[in-house]
Amino acid sequence: MIRNLTTLISSATQTVEISREQPTVIIGERINPTGRKNVLAALQAGNFDVVRQDALDQVAAGALVLDVNAGVPGMDEPVLLQKVLQTVMDVTDVPLCIDTANPTALEAALKTYQGKTLINSTNGEEKSLNAVLPLAREYGAAVIGLCIDDNGIPATPEARLAVAAKIIERAGQLGIPPADVVIDPLTLTLGADSQAAQVTLKTIELVVKEFGVNITAGASNVSFGMPDRKYLNAAFIAMAIHAGLTCPITNPLVTEVKTAVLAADLAMGRDDYGMRWITAYRQRQKEG
Amino acid sequence: MIRNLTTLISSATQTVEISREQPTVIIGERINPTGRKNVLAALQAGNFDVVRQDALDQVAAGALVLDVNAGVPGMDEPVLLQKVLQTVMDVTDVPLCIDTANPTALEAALKTYQGKTLINSTNGEEKSLNAVLPLAREYGAAVIGLCIDDNGIPATPEARLAVAAKIIERAGQLGIPPADVVIDPLTLTLGADSQAAQVTLKTIELVVKEFGVNITAGASNVSFGMPDRKYLNAAFIAMAIHAGLTCPITNPLVTEVKTAVLAADLAMGRDDYGMRWITAYRQRQKEG
Repeated sequence: MIRNLTTLISSATQTVEISREQPTVIIGERINPTGRKNVLAALQAGNFDVVRQDALDQVAAGALVLDVNAGVPGMDEPVLLQKVLQTVMDVTDVPLCIDTANPTALEAALKTYQGKTLINSTNGEEKSLNAVLPLAREYGAAVIGLCIDDNGIPATPEARLAVAAKIIERAGQLGIPPADVVIDPLTLTLGADSQAAQVTLKTIELVVKEFGVNITAGASNVSFGMPDRKYLNAAFIAMAIHAGLTCPITNPLVTEVKTAVLAADLAMGRDDYGMRWITAYRQRQKEG
Repeated sequence: MIRNLTTLISSATQTVEISREQPTVIIGERINPTGRKNVLAALQAGNFDVVRQDALDQVAAGALVLDVNAGVPGMDEPVLLQKVLQTVMDVTDVPLCIDTANPTALEAALKTYQGKTLINSTNGEEKSLNAVLPLAREYGAAVIGLCIDDNGIPATPEARLAVAAKIIERAGQLGIPPADVVIDPLTLTLGADSQAAQVTLKTIELVVKEFGVNITAGASNVSFGMPDRKYLNAAFIAMAIHAGLTCPITNPLVTEVKTAVLAADLAMGRDDYGMRWITAYRQRQKEG
């Protein structure tokens, strides 16, 4: 019997429910300077306009949660992450993911954030589990667990399941329930390995069957280095939703991807009377 | 342990292998006067040019098999189907599906066809099983079995699985192996029932798990009456391939659908080094 767990995350005023009984929750990926030179330059100059615009655009495009990353080489991440987080909280009411690999920055952000965040992320490495899980418990946060451990990224779905099991178990030992652990199976690029997506899809199926937890994925990664990425991302995200993905971290401004998520929800029976599909169609028509 | 059966169908000169170990086999749907007024009018006038063009276009777009239907109200179907079949055989070497609900037309077409066809279709109705299966055995054909029986289209995946089981069993009693039975779970429109696609996807999973047979579907049906059909069809076909669909009957001329099939194959690990994906991309670039 598969349990379908519900993860609740919130801002000061809004709560978002993540589960396989609800439409897919898109976590907007764009507030992240990695690989975005204009964002990087703006943050270095102390200009937060791009951050504000990215927040507003993604929410308008249907993101129900925003990921917030402020990893800028050479800058004080704890201070910068707090500033970026506050900037985003000032312009939108949606819940936020705090995205950092720096425990000091994470704790500073947890102090700033109002609501129940989704920490992005911990993983199966001892160092990460020991640093992140106590903070998640202390601040009552949910946490993303990446299927990687001290031995690297496991090659097989079974080995990734074992890492997910370890993270869920260790969280449980601290009193963090499985409902507050969201597993990321890891999505490697098909450009490097034609079996990469298949391993991700199978990992999702195994983790869902075994634990019923919610699943996230940096889904766009699958197409890195391939042509016509948007079409590949669209098909992959629909397949991953069929496998059990519930809260992809992706870019809702890409029409093909957004549309694939809506179509997948409709095909999964999570869009009564197709009302969300039809509403989004009308919105696209209006925008030309 | 899931068995993945291989269905072989052929023309006089080509054999196509349908299995979950191979890329998806698109069966081109367009040689069918149903709902296509220009085809209907041309056939009524004895003009087969549209048929020839549809055959060539679909093969150029990547169809590995073509469905051939000649059901024109008021015309002698056995005679017309033979003519249309011969017309298609004259211009292309790909294997063909003989698509008719008329046993007399089916037998006439089986006599004309050179190779091992895929009959489209029988179903769980006694009348259909008794008429079609003996012909499939006599002519050494494979056969599509629709999940409908004397009680109509079952509402649940479990009940559709039972119809599939009945068809596979009855075929077996005549010496037709499961590898030569391709199951169609039936795809109803989401416009009438928001759960329709989910029932189809679950039926595919159940039938594959139980019998390992190949799966076809008239996939475009899912979006009938909905806006932006191509996007919905694209996501649904990718999800259905993830569930176990191996030979959809669809229109390869729709870029979104064709691309979704290629992307799904790549994501399922059935496109080594992404060569088919990259080749198709270059082809699209060339065609502008």
